[in-house]
Amino acid sequence: MDHNHDKSKLISSAVVNRLPRYYRYLTDLLKDDNGRISSRELSKMMNVTASQIRQDLNCFGGFGQQGYGYNIKQLHSELGRILGVDRGFTAVIAGAGNLGKTISKSNLFIKRGVTLKALFDINPDVIGTQIAGFTVLDVRDAVNYCRENKIDIAVLTLPKDETAPVANMLAEAGVKGFWNFSNMEFRIEMSDAVVQNIHMGDSLMTLCYNLNSK
Amino acid sequence: MDHNHDKSKLISSAVVNRLPRYYRYLTDLLKDDNGRISSRELSKMMNVTASQIRQDLNCFGGFGQQGYGYNIKQLHSELGRILGVDRGFTAVIAGAGNLGKTISKSNLFIKRGVTLKALFDINPDVIGTQIAGFTVLDVRDAVNYCRENKIDIAVLTLPKDETAPVANMLAEAGVKGFWNFSNMEFRIEMSDAVVQNIHMGDSLMTLCYNLNSK
Repeated sequence: MDHNHDKSKLISSAVVNRLPRYYRYLTDLLKDDNGRISSRELSKMMNVTASQIRQDLNCFGGFGQQGYGYNIKQLHSELGRILGVDRGFTAVIAGAGNLGKTISKSNLFIKRGVTLKALFDINPDVIGTQIAGFTVLDVRDAVNYCRENKIDIAVLTLPKDETAPVANMLAEAGVKGFWNFSNMEFRIEMSDAVVQNIHMGDSLMTLCYNLNSK
Repeated sequence: MDHNHDKSKLISSAVVNRLPRYYRYLTDLLKDDNGRISSRELSKMMNVTASQIRQDLNCFGGFGQQGYGYNIKQLHSELGRILGVDRGFTAVIAGAGNLGKTISKSNLFIKRGVTLKALFDINPDVIGTQIAGFTVLDVRDAVNYCRENKIDIAVLTLPKDETAPVANMLAEAGVKGFWNFSNMEFRIEMSDAVVQNIHMGDSLMTLCYNLNSK
Protein backbone atom coordinates (compact mmCIF):
# COMPACT_ATOMS: atom_id res chain seq x y z
CA MET A 1 0.00 0.00 0.00
CA ASP A 2 2.79 2.37 0.89
CA HIS A 3 5.05 1.89 -2.09
CA ASN A 4 4.80 5.56 -3.07
CA HIS A 5 5.99 6.73 0.27
CA ASP A 6 9.69 6.60 -0.49
CA LYS A 7 9.26 7.89 -4.01
CA SER A 8 7.39 10.96 -2.87
CA LYS A 9 10.09 11.77 -0.33
CA LEU A 10 12.47 12.40 -3.20
CA ILE A 11 10.26 14.97 -4.92
CA SER A 12 11.35 18.57 -4.42
CA SER A 13 8.88 21.02 -2.94
CA ALA A 14 8.85 23.02 -6.18
CA VAL A 15 7.58 19.93 -8.00
CA VAL A 16 5.12 19.16 -5.20
CA ASN A 17 3.61 22.62 -5.56
CA ARG A 18 2.95 21.92 -9.22
CA LEU A 19 1.42 18.46 -8.68
CA PRO A 20 -2.15 19.57 -7.88
CA ARG A 21 -2.18 21.61 -11.08
CA TYR A 22 -1.07 18.64 -13.20
CA TYR A 23 -3.71 16.54 -11.51
CA ARG A 24 -6.35 19.18 -12.26
CA TYR A 25 -5.50 19.34 -15.95
CA LEU A 26 -5.39 15.56 -16.22
CA THR A 27 -8.79 15.30 -14.51
CA ASP A 28 -10.20 17.65 -17.13
CA LEU A 29 -8.51 15.74 -19.96
CA LEU A 30 -9.85 12.46 -18.67
CA LYS A 31 -13.41 13.68 -19.16
CA ASP A 32 -12.99 13.74 -22.94
CA ASP A 33 -10.16 11.41 -23.64
CA ASN A 34 -8.70 8.20 -22.35
CA GLY A 35 -5.85 8.25 -24.82
CA ARG A 36 -2.41 9.80 -24.73
CA ILE A 37 -1.05 13.32 -24.57
CA SER A 38 2.39 14.59 -25.49
CA SER A 39 4.36 16.86 -23.19
CA ARG A 40 4.16 19.42 -26.01
CA GLU A 41 0.34 19.41 -26.01
CA LEU A 42 0.22 19.51 -22.21
CA SER A 43 2.77 22.32 -22.29
CA LYS A 44 0.62 24.43 -24.61
CA MET A 45 -2.43 23.83 -22.43
CA MET A 46 -0.72 24.56 -19.11
CA ASN A 47 1.51 27.37 -20.32
CA VAL A 48 4.74 25.81 -19.00
CA THR A 49 7.62 24.39 -21.02
CA ALA A 50 7.45 20.81 -22.28
CA SER A 51 10.87 20.31 -20.76
CA GLN A 52 9.61 21.24 -17.29
CA ILE A 53 6.71 18.84 -17.66
CA ARG A 54 9.04 16.00 -18.66
CA GLN A 55 11.39 16.78 -15.78
CA ASP A 56 8.55 17.02 -13.25
CA LEU A 57 6.87 13.82 -14.35
CA ASN A 58 10.18 11.99 -14.47
CA CYS A 59 10.43 12.56 -10.71
CA PHE A 60 7.95 9.76 -10.16
CA GLY A 61 9.04 7.29 -12.73
CA GLY A 62 8.52 8.89 -16.14
CA PHE A 63 5.30 7.60 -17.62
CA GLY A 64 5.97 9.10 -21.01
CA GLN A 65 7.25 6.98 -23.83
CA GLN A 66 9.48 8.84 -26.26
CA GLY A 67 7.33 9.79 -29.23
CA TYR A 68 4.16 8.36 -27.70
CA GLY A 69 3.44 10.85 -24.92
CA TYR A 70 1.70 10.06 -21.66
CA ASN A 71 -1.16 7.67 -21.06
CA ILE A 72 -3.66 10.13 -19.56
CA LYS A 73 -5.53 7.62 -17.42
CA GLN A 74 -2.37 6.02 -16.04
CA LEU A 75 -0.68 9.34 -15.28
CA HIS A 76 -3.84 10.71 -13.65
CA SER A 77 -4.14 7.64 -11.49
CA GLU A 78 -0.47 7.66 -10.47
CA LEU A 79 -0.58 11.38 -9.60
CA GLY A 80 -3.75 10.68 -7.62
CA ARG A 81 -1.92 8.01 -5.63
CA ILE A 82 0.97 10.38 -4.90
CA LEU A 83 -1.52 13.05 -3.82
CA GLY A 84 -3.34 10.63 -1.53
CA VAL A 85 -6.64 10.59 -3.46
CA ASP A 86 -6.87 6.83 -2.89
CA ARG A 87 -6.14 7.06 0.82
CA GLY A 88 -9.76 7.67 1.76
CA PHE A 89 -8.99 10.63 3.98
CA THR A 90 -11.83 11.88 6.17
CA ALA A 91 -12.57 15.47 7.15
CA VAL A 92 -14.68 17.55 9.49
CA ILE A 93 -15.45 21.25 9.28
CA ALA A 94 -15.08 23.30 12.45
CA GLY A 95 -17.10 26.47 11.97
CA ALA A 96 -20.47 26.29 10.21
CA GLY A 97 -20.75 30.00 9.36
CA ASN A 98 -21.07 31.24 5.78
CA LEU A 99 -17.68 29.94 4.67
CA GLY A 100 -18.02 26.58 6.45
CA LYS A 101 -21.46 26.14 4.93
CA THR A 102 -20.20 27.00 1.45
CA ILE A 103 -17.32 24.55 1.74
CA SER A 104 -19.61 21.82 3.06
CA LYS A 105 -21.89 22.25 0.03
CA SER A 106 -19.03 22.27 -2.48
CA ASN A 107 -17.60 19.31 -4.34
CA LEU A 108 -14.08 20.14 -3.16
CA PHE A 109 -13.78 17.00 -1.02
CA ILE A 110 -15.44 14.35 -3.10
CA LYS A 111 -13.43 15.30 -6.21
CA ARG A 112 -10.23 14.60 -4.27
CA GLY A 113 -11.18 11.38 -2.54
CA VAL A 114 -11.85 13.06 0.81
CA THR A 115 -15.06 12.25 2.69
CA LEU A 116 -16.68 14.99 4.73
CA LYS A 117 -18.00 13.37 7.91
CA ALA A 118 -19.31 16.15 10.17
CA LEU A 119 -19.76 19.88 10.79
CA PHE A 120 -19.19 21.54 14.14
CA ASP A 121 -20.01 24.97 15.45
CA ILE A 122 -19.81 26.95 18.68
CA ASN A 123 -23.07 28.87 18.26
CA PRO A 124 -26.04 27.26 20.09
CA ASP A 125 -28.38 28.69 17.42
CA VAL A 126 -26.48 26.83 14.69
CA ILE A 127 -25.87 23.56 16.56
CA GLY A 128 -28.63 21.10 15.66
CA THR A 129 -29.50 22.77 12.34
CA GLN A 130 -29.19 20.90 9.03
CA ILE A 131 -26.48 21.88 6.54
CA ALA A 132 -25.67 19.89 3.41
CA GLY A 133 -27.28 16.80 4.91
CA PHE A 134 -25.41 17.06 8.22
CA THR A 135 -26.77 17.95 11.62
CA VAL A 136 -24.36 20.57 12.97
CA LEU A 137 -22.68 19.23 16.13
CA ASP A 138 -21.35 21.05 19.18
CA VAL A 139 -17.64 21.84 18.80
CA ARG A 140 -17.18 20.62 22.39
CA ASP A 141 -17.95 17.13 21.11
CA ALA A 142 -15.43 17.38 18.27
CA VAL A 143 -12.52 15.86 20.22
CA ASN A 144 -14.42 12.67 20.99
CA TYR A 145 -15.89 12.52 17.51
CA CYS A 146 -12.52 12.89 15.77
CA ARG A 147 -10.84 10.37 18.05
CA GLU A 148 -13.59 7.77 17.65
CA ASN A 149 -13.86 8.25 13.90
CA LYS A 150 -10.12 8.62 13.27
CA ILE A 151 -10.60 11.87 11.36
CA ASP A 152 -7.62 12.93 9.23
CA ILE A 153 -8.41 16.55 8.32
CA ALA A 154 -10.09 19.47 10.09
CA VAL A 155 -11.22 22.46 8.04
CA LEU A 156 -10.93 25.56 10.22
CA THR A 157 -13.57 28.16 9.40
CA LEU A 158 -13.99 29.43 12.95
CA PRO A 159 -13.63 32.98 14.23
CA LYS A 160 -9.93 33.89 14.59
CA ASP A 161 -9.79 33.62 18.38
CA GLU A 162 -11.29 30.13 18.38
CA THR A 163 -9.05 28.72 15.69
CA ALA A 164 -5.83 27.90 17.53
CA PRO A 165 -7.47 26.40 20.66
CA VAL A 166 -9.80 24.19 18.63
CA ALA A 167 -7.00 23.10 16.28
CA ASN A 168 -4.80 22.11 19.20
CA MET A 169 -7.63 20.14 20.82
CA LEU A 170 -8.25 18.31 17.56
CA ALA A 171 -4.54 17.60 17.09
CA GLU A 172 -4.56 15.87 20.45
CA ALA A 173 -7.53 13.85 19.25
CA GLY A 174 -5.39 12.57 16.39
CA VAL A 175 -6.27 14.97 13.56
CA LYS A 176 -3.14 15.34 11.46
CA GLY A 177 -4.14 17.81 8.75
CA PHE A 178 -5.53 21.32 9.19
CA TRP A 179 -6.95 23.38 6.35
CA ASN A 180 -6.94 26.84 7.83
CA PHE A 181 -9.20 29.61 6.51
CA SER A 182 -8.86 31.92 9.51
CA ASN A 183 -6.37 34.24 7.75
CA MET A 184 -4.06 33.96 10.71
CA GLU A 185 -1.21 31.58 11.40
CA PHE A 186 -1.14 29.41 14.49
CA ARG A 187 1.14 26.75 15.85
CA ILE A 188 0.11 23.20 16.58
CA GLU A 189 1.85 21.87 19.67
CA MET A 190 1.76 18.32 18.30
CA SER A 191 4.79 18.40 16.06
CA ASP A 192 3.58 15.98 13.39
CA ALA A 193 0.52 17.93 12.28
CA VAL A 194 0.37 19.60 8.87
CA VAL A 195 -1.24 23.01 8.42
CA GLN A 196 -2.26 24.35 5.02
CA ASN A 197 -3.31 28.00 5.10
CA ILE A 198 -5.66 29.73 2.70
CA HIS A 199 -5.12 33.45 3.14
CA MET A 200 -7.97 34.98 1.18
CA GLY A 201 -7.25 38.43 2.56
CA ASP A 202 -3.56 38.24 1.62
CA SER A 203 -4.54 37.10 -1.86
CA LEU A 204 -6.81 40.14 -2.30
CA MET A 205 -3.99 42.38 -1.03
CA THR A 206 -1.55 40.93 -3.55
CA LEU A 207 -4.07 41.68 -6.30
CA CYS A 208 -4.41 45.25 -5.00
CA TYR A 209 -0.61 45.62 -4.87
CA ASN A 210 -0.34 44.49 -8.48
CA LEU A 211 -3.08 46.90 -9.52
CA ASN A 212 -1.46 49.70 -7.55
CA SER A 213 1.99 49.20 -9.03
CA LYS A 214 0.76 49.06 -12.63
CA MET B 1 -0.30 60.86 -5.46
CA ASP B 2 1.83 58.36 -7.22
CA HIS B 3 5.06 58.76 -5.30
CA ASN B 4 5.06 55.09 -4.27
CA HIS B 5 4.83 53.93 -7.82
CA ASP B 6 8.54 54.06 -8.55
CA LYS B 7 9.49 52.77 -5.13
CA SER B 8 7.28 49.72 -5.44
CA LYS B 9 8.81 48.91 -8.82
CA LEU B 10 12.09 48.25 -7.07
CA ILE B 11 10.65 45.70 -4.65
CA SER B 12 11.41 42.07 -5.51
CA SER B 13 8.51 39.68 -5.93
CA ALA B 14 9.70 37.67 -2.91
CA VAL B 15 9.28 40.76 -0.73
CA VAL B 16 5.95 41.59 -2.39
CA ASN B 17 4.63 38.16 -1.47
CA ARG B 18 5.45 38.87 2.17
CA LEU B 19 3.90 42.35 2.26
CA PRO B 20 0.27 41.32 2.90
CA ARG B 21 1.46 39.27 5.86
CA TYR B 22 3.36 42.21 7.38
CA TYR B 23 0.32 44.37 6.83
CA ARG B 24 -1.88 41.79 8.56
CA TYR B 25 0.34 41.61 11.63
CA LEU B 26 0.63 45.38 11.81
CA THR B 27 -3.17 45.72 11.54
CA ASP B 28 -3.49 43.39 14.54
CA LEU B 29 -0.79 45.26 16.46
CA LEU B 30 -2.47 48.58 15.77
CA LYS B 31 -5.59 47.44 17.63
CA ASP B 32 -3.73 47.38 20.92
CA ASP B 33 -0.82 49.68 20.46
CA ASN B 34 0.10 52.86 18.68
CA GLY B 35 3.70 52.72 19.84
CA ARG B 36 6.78 51.10 18.45
CA ILE B 37 7.90 47.55 17.80
CA SER B 38 11.40 46.19 17.33
CA SER B 39 12.28 43.87 14.46
CA ARG B 40 13.14 41.32 17.16
CA GLU B 41 9.62 41.41 18.65
CA LEU B 42 8.04 41.30 15.20
CA SER B 43 10.36 38.44 14.29
CA LYS B 44 9.22 36.38 17.26
CA MET B 45 5.59 37.03 16.45
CA MET B 46 5.86 36.27 12.74
CA ASN B 47 8.34 33.41 13.00
CA VAL B 48 10.83 34.92 10.53
CA THR B 49 14.29 36.27 11.27
CA ALA B 50 14.69 39.86 12.46
CA SER B 51 17.26 40.29 9.73
CA GLN B 52 14.75 39.39 7.03
CA ILE B 53 12.25 41.85 8.48
CA ARG B 54 14.85 44.64 8.48
CA GLN B 55 15.86 43.83 4.91
CA ASP B 56 12.26 43.64 3.69
CA LEU B 57 11.20 46.87 5.33
CA ASN B 58 14.35 48.63 4.14
CA CYS B 59 13.09 48.07 0.59
CA PHE B 60 10.67 50.93 1.01
CA GLY B 61 12.72 53.38 2.94
CA GLY B 62 13.54 51.83 6.30
CA PHE B 63 11.16 53.13 8.89
CA GLY B 64 13.05 51.64 11.76
CA GLN B 65 15.36 53.72 13.86
CA GLN B 66 18.33 51.82 15.25
CA GLY B 67 17.48 50.92 18.83
CA TYR B 68 13.99 52.40 18.63
CA GLY B 69 12.22 49.93 16.38
CA TYR B 70 9.37 50.76 14.04
CA ASN B 71 6.55 53.20 14.57
CA ILE B 72 3.61 50.80 14.17
CA LYS B 73 1.12 53.33 12.91
CA GLN B 74 3.52 54.87 10.39
CA LEU B 75 4.71 51.52 9.06
CA HIS B 76 1.13 50.22 8.81
CA SER B 77 0.08 53.29 6.91
CA GLU B 78 3.06 53.19 4.54
CA LEU B 79 2.56 49.48 3.81
CA GLY B 80 -1.12 50.24 3.22
CA ARG B 81 -0.17 52.87 0.66
CA ILE B 82 2.18 50.45 -1.12
CA LEU B 83 -0.59 47.83 -1.14
CA GLY B 84 -3.10 50.29 -2.55
CA VAL B 85 -5.40 50.39 0.51
CA ASP B 86 -5.77 54.16 0.04
CA ARG B 87 -6.54 53.93 -3.66
CA GLY B 88 -10.25 53.40 -3.11
CA PHE B 89 -10.47 50.39 -5.43
CA THR B 90 -13.96 49.21 -6.33
CA ALA B 91 -15.08 45.64 -6.93
CA VAL B 92 -17.98 43.61 -8.25
CA ILE B 93 -18.69 39.93 -7.74
CA ALA B 94 -19.62 37.89 -10.79
CA GLY B 95 -21.36 34.76 -9.55
CA ALA B 96 -23.79 35.00 -6.62
CA GLY B 97 -23.78 31.31 -5.70
CA ASN B 98 -22.71 30.04 -2.28
CA LEU B 99 -19.12 31.29 -2.57
CA GLY B 100 -20.06 34.64 -4.11
CA LYS B 101 -22.65 35.15 -1.35
CA THR B 102 -20.14 34.25 1.36
CA ILE B 103 -17.54 36.65 -0.04
CA SER B 104 -20.12 39.43 -0.38
CA LYS B 105 -21.05 39.03 3.29
CA SER B 106 -17.44 38.95 4.51
CA ASN B 107 -15.34 41.88 5.64
CA LEU B 108 -12.56 40.99 3.19
CA PHE B 109 -13.06 44.12 1.09
CA ILE B 110 -13.73 46.79 3.64
CA LYS B 111 -10.69 45.80 5.70
CA ARG B 112 -8.49 46.45 2.69
CA GLY B 113 -9.97 49.69 1.43
CA VAL B 114 -11.91 48.02 -1.38
CA THR B 115 -15.59 48.90 -1.87
CA LEU B 116 -17.93 46.20 -3.11
CA LYS B 117 -20.35 47.85 -5.53
CA ALA B 118 -22.49 45.11 -7.09
CA LEU B 119 -23.22 41.40 -7.47
CA PHE B 120 -24.03 39.74 -10.77
CA ASP B 121 -25.37 36.32 -11.64
CA ILE B 122 -26.46 34.34 -14.67
CA ASN B 123 -29.34 32.49 -13.02
CA PRO B 124 -32.76 34.17 -13.57
CA ASP B 125 -33.90 32.78 -10.20
CA VAL B 126 -31.07 34.58 -8.43
CA ILE B 127 -31.17 37.86 -10.40
CA GLY B 128 -33.30 40.36 -8.51
CA THR B 129 -32.86 38.71 -5.11
CA GLN B 130 -31.26 40.56 -2.19
CA ILE B 131 -27.81 39.52 -0.93
CA ALA B 132 -25.80 41.48 1.63
CA GLY B 133 -27.81 44.60 0.85
CA PHE B 134 -27.38 44.31 -2.92
CA THR B 135 -29.97 43.46 -5.53
CA VAL B 136 -28.33 40.80 -7.70
CA LEU B 137 -27.98 42.11 -11.27
CA ASP B 138 -27.97 40.26 -14.57
CA VAL B 139 -24.42 39.41 -15.65
CA ARG B 140 -25.36 40.61 -19.16
CA ASP B 141 -25.52 44.12 -17.69
CA ALA B 142 -22.09 43.81 -16.06
CA VAL B 143 -20.14 45.28 -18.99
CA ASN B 144 -22.12 48.51 -18.99
CA TYR B 145 -22.13 48.68 -15.22
CA CYS B 146 -18.36 48.24 -14.91
CA ARG B 147 -17.64 50.72 -17.69
CA GLU B 148 -19.96 53.38 -16.27
CA ASN B 149 -18.76 52.90 -12.69
CA LYS B 150 -15.08 52.47 -13.56
CA ILE B 151 -14.84 49.21 -11.60
CA ASP B 152 -11.29 48.09 -10.77
CA ILE B 153 -11.75 44.49 -9.62
CA ALA B 154 -14.03 41.60 -10.57
CA VAL B 155 -14.33 38.63 -8.22
CA LEU B 156 -14.97 35.54 -10.33
CA THR B 157 -17.14 32.99 -8.53
CA LEU B 158 -18.92 31.73 -11.63
CA PRO B 159 -19.16 28.18 -12.93
CA LYS B 160 -15.93 27.20 -14.71
CA ASP B 161 -17.27 27.48 -18.24
CA GLU B 162 -18.59 30.99 -17.68
CA THR B 163 -15.45 32.35 -16.07
CA ALA B 164 -13.18 33.11 -19.03
CA PRO B 165 -15.88 34.65 -21.30
CA VAL B 166 -17.20 36.91 -18.52
CA ALA B 167 -13.66 37.92 -17.44
CA ASN B 168 -12.75 38.88 -21.00
CA MET B 169 -15.95 40.92 -21.41
CA LEU B 170 -15.23 42.74 -18.17
CA ALA B 171 -11.60 43.37 -19.18
CA GLU B 172 -12.89 45.11 -22.30
CA ALA B 173 -15.13 47.18 -20.04
CA GLY B 174 -12.02 48.43 -18.23
CA VAL B 175 -11.78 46.04 -15.28
CA LYS B 176 -8.07 45.60 -14.55
CA GLY B 177 -7.98 43.14 -11.65
CA PHE B 178 -9.50 39.66 -11.50
CA TRP B 179 -9.76 37.62 -8.32
CA ASN B 180 -10.39 34.17 -9.68
CA PHE B 181 -12.03 31.45 -7.56
CA SER B 182 -12.92 29.12 -10.44
CA ASN B 183 -10.00 26.76 -9.78
CA MET B 184 -9.00 27.00 -13.41
CA GLU B 185 -6.61 29.33 -15.17
CA PHE B 186 -7.72 31.50 -18.05
CA ARG B 187 -6.09 34.11 -20.21
CA ILE B 188 -7.24 37.67 -20.50
CA GLU B 189 -6.82 38.96 -24.03
CA MET B 190 -6.30 42.51 -22.76
CA SER B 191 -2.64 42.37 -21.87
CA ASP B 192 -2.65 44.81 -18.97
CA ALA B 193 -5.08 42.93 -16.72
CA VAL B 194 -3.92 41.26 -13.51
CA VAL B 195 -5.29 37.87 -12.44
CA GLN B 196 -4.95 36.56 -8.90
CA ASN B 197 -6.01 32.93 -8.55
CA ILE B 198 -7.28 31.25 -5.41
CA HIS B 199 -7.03 27.54 -6.02
CA MET B 200 -8.94 26.04 -3.10
CA GLY B 201 -8.88 22.59 -4.65
CA ASP B 202 -5.12 22.70 -5.21
CA SER B 203 -4.65 23.83 -1.62
CA LEU B 204 -6.63 20.84 -0.34
CA MET B 205 -4.58 18.54 -2.60
CA THR B 206 -1.32 19.93 -1.21
CA LEU B 207 -2.58 19.22 2.29
CA CYS B 208 -3.47 15.67 1.23
CA TYR B 209 -0.05 15.22 -0.36
CA ASN B 210 1.64 16.33 2.85
CA LEU B 211 -0.53 13.96 4.88
CA ASN B 212 0.13 11.14 2.43
CA SER B 213 3.90 11.56 2.46
CA LYS B 214 4.17 11.70 6.25
